[in-house]
Amino acid sequence: MGHISYVNGHYVRHARARVHIEDRGFQFADGVYEVFAIRRGRVLDAERHFERLTRSLAALRIPAPMSRAALQMVFAELIRRNNSPANGVLYLQITRGVAPRTHAFPPRAVPTLVATVNSLRPVDPEVLRAGVSVISLPDIRWRRPDIKSVSLLPNVLAKQQALEAGAYEAWLLDDSGMVTEGTASNAWIVTADGDLVTRPADMSILNGITRLVVLELAHRSNIRTVERPFSLAEAKAAKEAFLTGTTSLVKPVIRIDGATIGDGRMGTITAALQAAYLERLEDEE
Amino acid sequence: MGHISYVNGHYVRHARARVHIEDRGFQFADGVYEVFAIRRGRVLDAERHFERLTRSLAALRIPAPMSRAALQMVFAELIRRNNSPANGVLYLQITRGVAPRTHAFPPRAVPTLVATVNSLRPVDPEVLRAGVSVISLPDIRWRRPDIKSVSLLPNVLAKQQALEAGAYEAWLLDDSGMVTEGTASNAWIVTADGDLVTRPADMSILNGITRLVVLELAHRSNIRTVERPFSLAEAKAAKEAFLTGTTSLVKPVIRIDGATIGDGRMGTITAALQAAYLERLEDEE
Repeated sequence: MGHISYVNGHYVRHARARVHIEDRGFQFADGVYEVFAIRRGRVLDAERHFERLTRSLAALRIPAPMSRAALQMVFAELIRRNNSPANGVLYLQITRGVAPRTHAFPPRAVPTLVATVNSLRPVDPEVLRAGVSVISLPDIRWRRPDIKSVSLLPNVLAKQQALEAGAYEAWLLDDSGMVTEGTASNAWIVTADGDLVTRPADMSILNGITRLVVLELAHRSNIRTVERPFSLAEAKAAKEAFLTGTTSLVKPVIRIDGATIGDGRMGTITAALQAAYLERLEDEE
Repeated sequence: MGHISYVNGHYVRHARARVHIEDRGFQFADGVYEVFAIRRGRVLDAERHFERLTRSLAALRIPAPMSRAALQMVFAELIRRNNSPANGVLYLQITRGVAPRTHAFPPRAVPTLVATVNSLRPVDPEVLRAGVSVISLPDIRWRRPDIKSVSLLPNVLAKQQALEAGAYEAWLLDDSGMVTEGTASNAWIVTADGDLVTRPADMSILNGITRLVVLELAHRSNIRTVERPFSLAEAKAAKEAFLTGTTSLVKPVIRIDGATIGDGRMGTITAALQAAYLERLEDEE
Protein backbone atom coordinates (compact mmCIF):
# COMPACT_ATOMS: atom_id res chain seq x y z
CA MET A 1 0.00 0.00 0.00
CA GLY A 2 1.57 3.30 -1.11
CA HIS A 3 1.39 6.73 0.42
CA ILE A 4 -2.24 7.89 0.41
CA SER A 5 -3.58 11.39 1.02
CA TYR A 6 -7.04 12.83 1.37
CA VAL A 7 -8.30 15.59 -0.93
CA ASN A 8 -11.88 16.84 -0.81
CA GLY A 9 -13.61 13.53 -0.16
CA HIS A 10 -11.18 11.28 -2.01
CA TYR A 11 -8.36 9.04 -0.85
CA VAL A 12 -5.74 9.42 -3.55
CA ARG A 13 -2.18 8.39 -4.24
CA HIS A 14 -0.04 11.03 -2.57
CA ALA A 15 1.91 11.73 -5.76
CA ARG A 16 -1.38 12.66 -7.40
CA ALA A 17 -2.86 14.67 -4.53
CA ARG A 18 -3.52 18.08 -6.04
CA VAL A 19 -5.50 21.26 -5.60
CA HIS A 20 -6.53 23.80 -8.21
CA ILE A 21 -4.11 26.64 -9.01
CA GLU A 22 -6.87 29.08 -8.03
CA ASP A 23 -7.25 27.53 -4.61
CA ARG A 24 -7.13 30.45 -2.20
CA GLY A 25 -4.63 28.56 -0.08
CA PHE A 26 -2.21 28.71 -3.01
CA GLN A 27 -2.92 32.28 -4.15
CA PHE A 28 -3.67 34.12 -0.88
CA ALA A 29 -2.49 31.97 2.08
CA ASP A 30 -6.22 31.99 2.83
CA GLY A 31 -6.42 28.86 4.93
CA VAL A 32 -5.61 27.19 8.24
CA TYR A 33 -3.93 23.98 9.31
CA GLU A 34 -3.26 21.64 12.21
CA VAL A 35 -0.47 19.12 12.78
CA PHE A 36 -1.53 16.14 14.90
CA ALA A 37 0.91 13.72 16.46
CA ILE A 38 0.20 10.06 15.66
CA ARG A 39 1.20 7.41 18.20
CA ARG A 40 0.48 3.76 17.52
CA GLY A 41 -1.96 4.63 14.78
CA ARG A 42 -4.02 7.22 16.69
CA VAL A 43 -3.99 11.03 16.67
CA LEU A 44 -3.27 12.57 20.05
CA ASP A 45 -5.11 15.43 21.74
CA ALA A 46 -7.68 15.50 18.96
CA GLU A 47 -10.22 17.54 20.89
CA ARG A 48 -7.75 20.32 21.68
CA HIS A 49 -6.61 20.51 18.07
CA PHE A 50 -10.22 20.61 16.92
CA GLU A 51 -11.00 23.43 19.33
CA ARG A 52 -8.11 25.45 17.98
CA LEU A 53 -9.09 24.60 14.40
CA THR A 54 -12.62 25.81 15.07
CA ARG A 55 -11.21 29.05 16.47
CA SER A 56 -8.89 29.58 13.46
CA LEU A 57 -11.70 28.92 10.98
CA ALA A 58 -14.02 31.30 12.84
CA ALA A 59 -11.36 34.04 12.88
CA LEU A 60 -11.11 33.81 9.08
CA ARG A 61 -14.85 33.14 8.62
CA ILE A 62 -14.21 29.91 6.72
CA PRO A 63 -17.08 27.45 7.26
CA ALA A 64 -16.08 24.10 8.76
CA PRO A 65 -16.23 21.63 5.88
CA MET A 66 -17.36 18.74 8.09
CA SER A 67 -18.12 17.84 11.69
CA ARG A 68 -15.44 16.75 14.15
CA ALA A 69 -16.89 13.26 14.15
CA ALA A 70 -16.61 13.09 10.37
CA LEU A 71 -13.06 14.42 10.50
CA GLN A 72 -12.19 11.74 13.06
CA MET A 73 -13.50 9.09 10.67
CA VAL A 74 -11.45 10.51 7.80
CA PHE A 75 -8.38 10.54 10.03
CA ALA A 76 -8.89 6.92 11.11
CA GLU A 77 -9.33 5.77 7.52
CA LEU A 78 -6.37 7.79 6.26
CA ILE A 79 -4.13 6.46 9.02
CA ARG A 80 -5.29 2.92 8.28
CA ARG A 81 -4.55 3.34 4.57
CA ASN A 82 -1.05 4.51 5.48
CA ASN A 83 -0.29 1.40 7.53
CA SER A 84 -1.12 2.97 10.91
CA PRO A 85 2.32 4.37 11.74
CA ALA A 86 3.56 3.87 15.29
CA ASN A 87 5.00 7.35 15.29
CA GLY A 88 4.06 10.07 12.82
CA VAL A 89 2.10 13.18 12.01
CA LEU A 90 -1.21 13.92 10.40
CA TYR A 91 -1.28 17.25 8.58
CA LEU A 92 -4.69 18.82 7.96
CA GLN A 93 -5.26 21.94 5.87
CA ILE A 94 -8.52 23.74 5.17
CA THR A 95 -8.72 26.71 2.80
CA ARG A 96 -11.51 29.02 1.68
CA GLY A 97 -11.71 27.04 -1.56
CA VAL A 98 -11.33 27.65 -5.28
CA ALA A 99 -12.50 30.83 -6.97
CA PRO A 100 -11.42 33.25 -9.72
CA ARG A 101 -8.67 35.38 -8.20
CA THR A 102 -9.87 38.47 -6.37
CA HIS A 103 -8.96 39.44 -2.80
CA ALA A 104 -12.44 39.58 -1.25
CA PHE A 105 -14.19 36.42 -0.03
CA PRO A 106 -15.75 34.58 -2.97
CA PRO A 107 -19.53 34.30 -2.55
CA ARG A 108 -19.91 30.61 -3.28
CA ALA A 109 -16.57 28.88 -2.71
CA VAL A 110 -16.60 25.44 -1.10
CA PRO A 111 -13.74 25.01 1.42
CA THR A 112 -10.87 22.75 0.41
CA LEU A 113 -9.86 20.01 2.85
CA VAL A 114 -6.64 18.05 2.47
CA ALA A 115 -4.89 15.70 4.86
CA THR A 116 -1.64 13.74 4.73
CA VAL A 117 -0.10 11.17 7.02
CA ASN A 118 3.63 10.62 7.42
CA SER A 119 5.48 8.26 9.66
CA LEU A 120 8.40 9.72 11.55
CA ARG A 121 11.37 8.34 13.37
CA PRO A 122 10.96 8.98 17.10
CA VAL A 123 12.85 12.06 18.27
CA ASP A 124 16.46 11.15 19.00
CA PRO A 125 16.76 10.67 22.80
CA GLU A 126 20.23 12.19 22.61
CA VAL A 127 18.78 15.45 21.21
CA LEU A 128 16.11 15.40 23.91
CA ARG A 129 18.88 15.09 26.50
CA ALA A 130 21.58 17.31 25.04
CA GLY A 131 19.31 20.11 23.84
CA VAL A 132 19.48 22.58 20.99
CA SER A 133 20.68 26.08 20.16
CA VAL A 134 18.43 28.95 19.15
CA ILE A 135 19.13 32.35 17.63
CA SER A 136 17.02 35.48 18.06
CA LEU A 137 15.48 37.35 15.14
CA PRO A 138 12.97 40.18 14.85
CA ASP A 139 9.37 38.97 14.72
CA ILE A 140 8.26 40.27 11.31
CA ARG A 141 5.12 38.14 11.03
CA TRP A 142 1.64 39.55 10.62
CA ARG A 143 -0.09 40.59 13.82
CA ARG A 144 -2.32 37.54 14.16
CA PRO A 145 -0.02 34.53 14.64
CA ASP A 146 -2.61 33.29 17.15
CA ILE A 147 -4.60 32.18 14.10
CA LYS A 148 -3.02 28.98 12.79
CA SER A 149 -3.01 30.15 9.17
CA VAL A 150 -0.74 29.01 6.34
CA SER A 151 0.64 32.56 6.17
CA LEU A 152 4.02 31.09 7.15
CA LEU A 153 6.55 32.76 4.87
CA PRO A 154 8.29 34.72 7.67
CA ASN A 155 8.45 31.52 9.72
CA VAL A 156 10.09 29.76 6.78
CA LEU A 157 12.68 32.50 6.35
CA ALA A 158 13.50 32.65 10.07
CA LYS A 159 13.77 28.87 10.39
CA GLN A 160 16.09 28.75 7.40
CA GLN A 161 18.24 31.52 8.89
CA ALA A 162 18.42 29.57 12.16
CA LEU A 163 19.55 26.38 10.40
CA GLU A 164 22.19 28.27 8.43
CA ALA A 165 23.47 29.72 11.71
CA GLY A 166 23.83 26.18 13.05
CA ALA A 167 20.79 26.52 15.33
CA TYR A 168 17.63 24.45 15.60
CA GLU A 169 15.12 27.26 15.97
CA ALA A 170 14.75 31.05 15.94
CA TRP A 171 13.15 32.86 18.87
CA LEU A 172 11.30 35.88 17.57
CA LEU A 173 11.45 39.28 19.27
CA ASP A 174 8.67 41.84 19.33
CA ASP A 175 9.35 45.59 19.04
CA SER A 176 10.09 45.76 22.78
CA GLY A 177 12.74 43.04 22.59
CA MET A 178 10.48 40.50 24.26
CA VAL A 179 10.43 36.92 22.98
CA THR A 180 7.15 35.98 21.31
CA GLU A 181 7.82 32.35 20.32
CA GLY A 182 9.76 30.17 17.88
CA THR A 183 8.92 29.69 14.21
CA ALA A 184 7.21 26.40 15.00
CA SER A 185 7.42 26.07 18.79
CA ASN A 186 6.69 27.95 22.01
CA ALA A 187 9.48 29.43 24.18
CA TRP A 188 10.01 28.91 27.92
CA ILE A 189 12.53 29.88 30.58
CA VAL A 190 13.12 29.08 34.23
CA THR A 191 14.25 32.07 36.32
CA ALA A 192 16.91 32.07 39.05
CA ASP A 193 14.02 31.85 41.54
CA GLY A 194 12.79 28.68 39.85
CA ASP A 195 9.73 30.24 38.23
CA LEU A 196 8.64 28.69 34.97
CA VAL A 197 7.88 31.54 32.55
CA THR A 198 6.18 31.54 29.16
CA ARG A 199 4.40 34.24 27.21
CA PRO A 200 0.63 34.41 27.71
CA ALA A 201 -1.41 33.17 24.77
CA ASP A 202 -2.53 36.58 23.54
CA MET A 203 -2.66 37.52 19.85
CA SER A 204 1.14 37.56 19.60
CA ILE A 205 1.69 33.80 19.72
CA LEU A 206 0.13 30.55 18.63
CA ASN A 207 -1.26 28.73 21.63
CA GLY A 208 0.54 25.41 21.19
CA ILE A 209 -1.21 22.21 22.25
CA THR A 210 2.09 21.02 23.74
CA ARG A 211 2.28 24.39 25.53
CA LEU A 212 -1.12 23.74 27.13
CA VAL A 213 -0.16 20.22 28.13
CA VAL A 214 3.14 21.38 29.66
CA LEU A 215 1.32 24.11 31.61
CA GLU A 216 -0.93 21.40 33.07
CA LEU A 217 2.00 19.12 33.84
CA ALA A 218 3.80 21.99 35.59
CA HIS A 219 0.67 22.70 37.63
CA ARG A 220 0.36 19.05 38.65
CA SER A 221 4.04 18.97 39.62
CA ASN A 222 3.62 22.13 41.73
CA ILE A 223 6.08 24.04 39.60
CA ARG A 224 5.44 27.77 40.06
CA THR A 225 4.35 29.08 36.66
CA VAL A 226 4.03 32.65 35.43
CA GLU A 227 2.53 33.52 32.07
CA ARG A 228 4.22 36.82 31.16
CA PRO A 229 6.46 38.11 28.38
CA PHE A 230 10.20 37.77 28.95
CA SER A 231 13.03 39.61 27.23
CA LEU A 232 15.93 38.20 25.24
CA ALA A 233 18.30 39.42 27.97
CA GLU A 234 16.27 37.61 30.61
CA ALA A 235 16.30 34.45 28.52
CA LYS A 236 20.06 34.55 28.11
CA ALA A 237 20.48 34.98 31.87
CA ALA A 238 17.91 32.29 32.69
CA LYS A 239 18.67 29.19 34.73
CA GLU A 240 17.00 26.98 32.15
CA ALA A 241 15.31 27.37 28.80
CA PHE A 242 13.35 25.02 26.56
CA LEU A 243 10.94 24.91 23.68
CA THR A 244 7.78 22.90 23.02
CA GLY A 245 5.89 21.74 19.96
CA THR A 246 3.95 18.79 18.57
CA THR A 247 6.96 17.42 16.73
CA SER A 248 9.68 19.05 18.89
CA LEU A 249 8.19 17.66 22.14
CA VAL A 250 10.04 19.30 25.09
CA LYS A 251 13.57 20.22 24.02
CA PRO A 252 16.15 21.90 26.27
CA VAL A 253 17.59 25.13 24.84
CA ILE A 254 21.21 25.24 25.83
CA ARG A 255 22.42 28.21 23.82
CA ILE A 256 20.75 31.47 22.72
CA ASP A 257 22.69 33.58 20.22
CA GLY A 258 25.79 31.68 21.30
CA ALA A 259 25.35 32.42 25.03
CA THR A 260 25.26 29.29 27.18
CA ILE A 261 22.11 28.90 29.30
CA GLY A 262 22.77 27.81 32.89
CA ASP A 263 25.61 25.27 32.89
CA GLY A 264 24.88 24.24 29.30
CA ARG A 265 23.02 21.11 30.29
CA MET A 266 19.34 20.31 30.61
CA GLY A 267 18.03 21.87 33.84
CA THR A 268 16.07 20.02 36.51
CA ILE A 269 12.68 21.61 35.80
CA THR A 270 13.08 21.06 32.07
CA ALA A 271 14.05 17.45 32.74
CA ALA A 272 11.03 16.93 35.01
CA LEU A 273 8.62 18.39 32.45
CA GLN A 274 10.19 16.47 29.58
CA ALA A 275 9.91 13.22 31.52
CA ALA A 276 6.31 13.96 32.47
CA TYR A 277 5.51 14.80 28.85
CA LEU A 278 7.09 11.63 27.46
CA GLU A 279 5.34 9.58 30.15
CA ARG A 280 2.01 11.14 29.19
CA LEU A 281 2.68 10.14 25.55
CA GLU A 282 3.13 6.56 26.72
CA ASP A 283 -0.03 6.70 28.83
CA GLU A 284 -2.01 7.96 25.85
CA GLU A 285 -1.21 4.84 23.94
CA MET B 1 -11.14 27.14 -27.50
CA GLY B 2 -11.69 26.88 -23.74
CA HIS B 3 -9.90 28.55 -20.88
CA ILE B 4 -6.27 27.42 -20.87
CA SER B 5 -3.69 27.84 -18.10
CA TYR B 6 0.00 27.09 -17.86
CA VAL B 7 1.39 24.75 -15.19
CA ASN B 8 5.06 23.74 -15.12
CA GLY B 9 5.63 23.47 -18.85
CA HIS B 10 2.15 22.38 -19.86
CA TYR B 11 -0.79 24.24 -21.36
CA VAL B 12 -3.79 22.64 -19.70
CA ARG B 13 -7.52 23.15 -19.46
CA HIS B 14 -8.01 25.68 -16.68
CA ALA B 15 -10.46 23.43 -14.82
CA ARG B 16 -7.68 20.83 -14.61
CA ALA B 17 -4.84 23.19 -13.72
CA ARG B 18 -3.53 21.85 -10.44
CA VAL B 19 -0.53 21.86 -8.13
CA HIS B 20 0.50 19.29 -5.55
CA ILE B 21 -0.91 19.63 -2.01
CA GLU B 22 2.70 19.81 -0.76
CA ASP B 23 3.49 22.75 -2.99
CA ARG B 24 5.10 25.30 -0.69
CA GLY B 25 2.85 27.97 -2.15
CA PHE B 26 -0.12 26.07 -0.71
CA GLN B 27 1.41 25.09 2.64
CA PHE B 28 3.68 28.04 3.49
CA ALA B 29 2.77 31.02 1.23
CA ASP B 30 6.31 30.43 0.01
CA GLY B 31 6.03 32.06 -3.40
CA VAL B 32 5.71 35.28 -5.36
CA TYR B 33 3.43 36.58 -8.09
CA GLU B 34 2.87 39.31 -10.64
CA VAL B 35 -0.31 40.58 -12.28
CA PHE B 36 0.23 41.93 -15.78
CA ALA B 37 -2.34 44.01 -17.63
CA ILE B 38 -3.20 42.71 -21.11
CA ARG B 39 -4.26 45.20 -23.78
CA ARG B 40 -5.07 44.00 -27.29
CA GLY B 41 -3.42 40.68 -26.66
CA ARG B 42 -0.12 41.98 -25.23
CA VAL B 43 1.15 42.31 -21.67
CA LEU B 44 2.06 45.85 -20.67
CA ASP B 45 5.19 47.03 -18.87
CA ALA B 46 6.67 43.56 -19.02
CA GLU B 47 10.22 44.68 -18.24
CA ARG B 48 9.21 46.53 -15.07
CA HIS B 49 7.20 43.56 -13.86
CA PHE B 50 10.12 41.24 -14.61
CA GLU B 51 12.49 43.47 -12.68
CA ARG B 52 10.21 43.38 -9.65
CA LEU B 53 9.74 39.63 -10.04
CA THR B 54 13.50 39.13 -10.08
CA ARG B 55 13.78 41.22 -6.91
CA SER B 56 11.01 39.26 -5.14
CA LEU B 57 12.55 35.90 -6.09
CA ALA B 58 15.98 37.04 -4.93
CA ALA B 59 14.57 38.24 -1.59
CA LEU B 60 13.15 34.75 -0.98
CA ARG B 61 16.11 32.98 -2.62
CA ILE B 62 13.88 31.14 -5.08
CA PRO B 63 15.75 30.44 -8.33
CA ALA B 64 14.14 31.90 -11.46
CA PRO B 65 12.56 28.94 -13.26
CA MET B 66 13.24 30.35 -16.73
CA SER B 67 14.65 33.39 -18.50
CA ARG B 68 12.62 36.50 -19.20
CA ALA B 69 12.71 35.70 -22.90
CA ALA B 70 11.27 32.24 -22.23
CA LEU B 71 8.60 33.70 -19.96
CA GLN B 72 7.65 36.15 -22.70
CA MET B 73 7.20 33.24 -25.10
CA VAL B 74 5.02 31.38 -22.61
CA PHE B 75 2.96 34.53 -22.11
CA ALA B 76 2.47 35.04 -25.84
CA GLU B 77 1.42 31.42 -26.35
CA LEU B 78 -0.90 31.45 -23.34
CA ILE B 79 -2.55 34.68 -24.47
CA ARG B 80 -2.96 33.28 -27.98
CA ARG B 81 -4.57 30.10 -26.62
CA ASN B 82 -7.01 32.25 -24.68
CA ASN B 83 -8.16 34.17 -27.77
CA SER B 84 -5.88 37.18 -27.20
CA PRO B 85 -8.21 39.26 -25.04
CA ALA B 86 -8.46 42.96 -25.85
CA ASN B 87 -8.51 43.77 -22.16
CA GLY B 88 -7.47 41.39 -19.40
CA VAL B 89 -4.88 40.22 -16.93
CA LEU B 90 -2.15 37.64 -16.89
CA TYR B 91 -1.48 36.21 -13.43
CA LEU B 92 1.92 34.60 -12.85
CA GLN B 93 2.90 32.72 -9.70
CA ILE B 94 6.21 31.11 -8.84
CA THR B 95 6.71 29.08 -5.66
CA ARG B 96 9.66 27.29 -4.10
CA GLY B 97 8.21 24.01 -5.38
CA VAL B 98 6.98 20.71 -3.96
CA ALA B 99 8.63 19.02 -0.98
CA PRO B 100 7.67 17.04 2.13
CA ARG B 101 6.40 19.58 4.64
CA THR B 102 9.08 21.17 6.81
CA HIS B 103 9.66 24.89 7.28
CA ALA B 104 13.25 25.16 6.08
CA PHE B 105 14.10 25.42 2.37
CA PRO B 106 14.00 21.97 0.76
CA PRO B 107 17.39 21.05 -0.70
CA ARG B 108 16.24 19.90 -4.12
CA ALA B 109 12.84 21.45 -4.87
CA VAL B 110 12.14 22.63 -8.41
CA PRO B 111 10.20 25.92 -8.47
CA THR B 112 6.56 25.75 -9.53
CA LEU B 113 5.44 28.15 -12.27
CA VAL B 114 1.77 28.71 -13.08
CA ALA B 115 0.10 31.35 -15.23
CA THR B 116 -3.51 32.17 -16.07
CA VAL B 117 -5.09 34.62 -18.46
CA ASN B 118 -8.48 36.23 -17.96
CA SER B 119 -10.30 38.74 -20.08
CA LEU B 120 -11.84 41.65 -18.19
CA ARG B 121 -14.42 44.25 -18.99
CA PRO B 122 -12.72 47.65 -19.25
CA VAL B 123 -13.01 49.68 -16.02
CA ASP B 124 -16.33 51.53 -15.94
CA PRO B 125 -15.62 55.14 -17.07
CA GLU B 126 -18.25 56.31 -14.59
CA VAL B 127 -16.26 54.78 -11.68
CA LEU B 128 -13.09 56.38 -13.04
CA ARG B 129 -14.90 59.73 -13.04
CA ALA B 130 -16.98 59.48 -9.86
CA GLY B 131 -14.34 57.82 -7.69
CA VAL B 132 -14.48 55.44 -4.76
CA SER B 133 -14.58 55.37 -0.96
CA VAL B 134 -11.89 53.92 1.25
CA ILE B 135 -11.78 53.04 4.94
CA SER B 136 -8.70 52.99 7.14
CA LEU B 137 -7.54 49.90 9.02
CA PRO B 138 -4.41 49.01 10.98
CA ASP B 139 -1.66 47.55 8.79
CA ILE B 140 -1.24 44.10 10.36
CA ARG B 141 0.75 42.57 7.48
CA TRP B 142 4.22 41.11 7.86
CA ARG B 143 7.06 43.60 7.69
CA ARG B 144 8.09 42.87 4.11
CA PRO B 145 5.17 43.86 1.90
CA ASP B 146 7.79 45.18 -0.54
CA ILE B 147 8.27 41.54 -1.55
CA LYS B 148 5.36 40.58 -3.82
CA SER B 149 4.69 37.30 -2.02
CA VAL B 150 1.44 35.34 -1.84
CA SER B 151 1.39 35.98 1.91
CA LEU B 152 -1.84 37.93 1.36
CA LEU B 153 -4.19 36.81 4.11
CA PRO B 154 -4.24 40.21 5.89
CA ASN B 155 -4.88 41.90 2.55
CA VAL B 156 -7.82 39.54 1.97
CA LEU B 157 -9.31 40.29 5.40
CA ALA B 158 -8.89 44.06 5.03
CA LYS B 159 -10.34 44.12 1.52
CA GLN B 160 -13.33 42.11 2.68
CA GLN B 161 -13.86 44.48 5.61
CA ALA B 162 -13.73 47.44 3.20
CA LEU B 163 -16.35 45.90 0.90
CA GLU B 164 -18.63 45.13 3.84
CA ALA B 165 -18.31 48.78 4.93
CA GLY B 166 -19.46 49.84 1.46
CA ALA B 167 -15.96 50.94 0.44
CA TYR B 168 -13.77 49.94 -2.50
CA GLU B 169 -10.46 49.65 -0.68
CA ALA B 170 -8.82 49.83 2.76
CA TRP B 171 -5.92 52.20 3.39
CA LEU B 172 -3.61 50.60 5.92
CA LEU B 173 -2.06 52.55 8.80
CA ASP B 174 1.31 51.88 10.36
CA ASP B 175 1.90 52.17 14.12
CA SER B 176 2.43 55.94 13.77
CA GLY B 177 -0.93 56.42 12.04
CA MET B 178 0.70 57.00 8.66
CA VAL B 179 -0.87 55.46 5.57
CA THR B 180 1.23 52.70 4.04
CA GLU B 181 -0.92 51.66 1.04
CA GLY B 182 -4.13 49.86 0.07
CA THR B 183 -4.63 46.09 0.11
CA ALA B 184 -3.99 45.95 -3.65
CA SER B 185 -3.17 49.54 -4.64
CA ASN B 186 -0.93 52.48 -3.73
CA ALA B 187 -2.26 55.58 -1.96
CA TRP B 188 -1.81 59.23 -3.03
CA ILE B 189 -2.94 62.65 -1.90
CA VAL B 190 -2.67 66.21 -3.18
CA THR B 191 -2.05 68.80 -0.46
CA ALA B 192 -3.60 72.26 -0.22
CA ASP B 193 -0.38 73.58 -1.77
CA GLY B 194 -0.87 71.33 -4.77
CA ASP B 195 1.93 68.91 -3.89
CA LEU B 196 1.40 65.32 -5.02
CA VAL B 197 2.36 63.06 -2.11
CA THR B 198 2.87 59.30 -1.95
CA ARG B 199 4.82 57.10 0.42
CA PRO B 200 8.39 56.30 -0.62
CA ALA B 201 8.91 52.73 -1.81
CA ASP B 202 10.72 51.50 1.29
CA MET B 203 10.08 48.09 2.87
CA SER B 204 6.63 49.17 4.09
CA ILE B 205 4.88 49.14 0.70
CA LEU B 206 4.83 47.30 -2.58
CA ASN B 207 6.32 49.46 -5.29
CA GLY B 208 3.45 49.37 -7.78
CA ILE B 209 4.22 49.48 -11.48
CA THR B 210 1.30 51.89 -11.92
CA ARG B 211 2.81 53.93 -9.07
CA LEU B 212 6.10 54.20 -11.00
CA VAL B 213 4.31 55.16 -14.20
CA VAL B 214 2.23 57.82 -12.43
CA LEU B 215 5.36 59.27 -10.82
CA GLU B 216 6.86 59.61 -14.32
CA LEU B 217 3.70 61.14 -15.73
CA ALA B 218 3.60 63.66 -12.85
CA HIS B 219 7.22 64.55 -13.52
CA ARG B 220 6.55 65.06 -17.22
CA SER B 221 3.52 67.22 -16.40
CA ASN B 222 5.60 69.34 -13.99
CA ILE B 223 3.44 68.35 -11.03
CA ARG B 224 5.42 68.89 -7.83
CA THR B 225 5.86 65.46 -6.26
CA VAL B 226 7.03 64.54 -2.77
CA GLU B 227 7.67 60.94 -1.73
CA ARG B 228 7.03 60.96 2.00
CA PRO B 229 4.66 59.24 4.44
CA PHE B 230 1.36 61.03 5.12
CA SER B 231 -1.02 60.55 8.01
CA LEU B 232 -4.67 59.55 7.94
CA ALA B 233 -5.57 63.03 9.25
CA GLU B 234 -3.61 64.65 6.44
CA ALA B 235 -5.32 62.41 3.90
CA LYS B 236 -8.78 63.33 5.19
CA ALA B 237 -7.90 67.03 4.98
CA ALA B 238 -6.28 66.69 1.54
CA LYS B 239 -7.45 68.60 -1.53
CA GLU B 240 -7.47 65.40 -3.59
CA ALA B 241 -6.81 61.73 -3.06
CA PHE B 242 -6.53 58.76 -5.38
CA LEU B 243 -5.27 55.21 -5.64
CA THR B 244 -3.34 53.35 -8.33
CA GLY B 245 -2.96 49.73 -9.37
CA THR B 246 -2.66 47.51 -12.43
CA THR B 247 -6.37 46.69 -12.46
CA SER B 248 -7.59 49.79 -10.56
CA LEU B 249 -5.76 52.18 -12.92
CA VAL B 250 -5.98 55.72 -11.42
CA LYS B 251 -9.13 56.01 -9.32
CA PRO B 252 -10.18 59.15 -7.42
CA VAL B 253 -10.79 58.59 -3.71
CA ILE B 254 -13.69 60.78 -2.71
CA ARG B 255 -14.32 59.57 0.84
CA ILE B 256 -12.03 58.26 3.59
CA ASP B 257 -13.78 56.78 6.63
CA GLY B 258 -16.89 58.69 5.57
CA ALA B 259 -15.14 62.09 5.39
CA THR B 260 -15.48 63.78 2.00
CA ILE B 261 -12.20 64.66 0.28
CA GLY B 262 -12.11 68.14 -1.25
CA ASP B 263 -15.50 68.90 -2.76
CA GLY B 264 -16.27 65.20 -3.24
CA ARG B 265 -15.39 65.20 -6.90
CA MET B 266 -12.28 64.15 -8.82
CA GLY B 267 -9.66 66.88 -8.39
CA THR B 268 -7.74 68.55 -11.23
CA ILE B 269 -4.38 66.85 -10.60
CA THR B 270 -6.03 63.45 -10.28
CA ALA B 271 -7.94 64.09 -13.49
CA ALA B 272 -4.77 65.13 -15.32
CA LEU B 273 -2.86 62.04 -14.16
CA GLN B 274 -5.78 59.72 -14.92
CA ALA B 275 -6.08 61.16 -18.42
CA ALA B 276 -2.33 60.88 -18.99
CA TYR B 277 -2.39 57.29 -17.72
CA LEU B 278 -5.31 56.26 -19.95
CA GLU B 279 -3.67 58.00 -22.91
CA ARG B 280 -0.45 56.07 -22.26
CA LEU B 281 -2.45 52.82 -22.27
CA GLU B 282 -3.75 53.76 -25.72
CA ASP B 283 -0.27 54.67 -26.94
CA GLU B 284 1.05 51.30 -25.76
CA GLU B 285 -1.32 49.51 -28.03
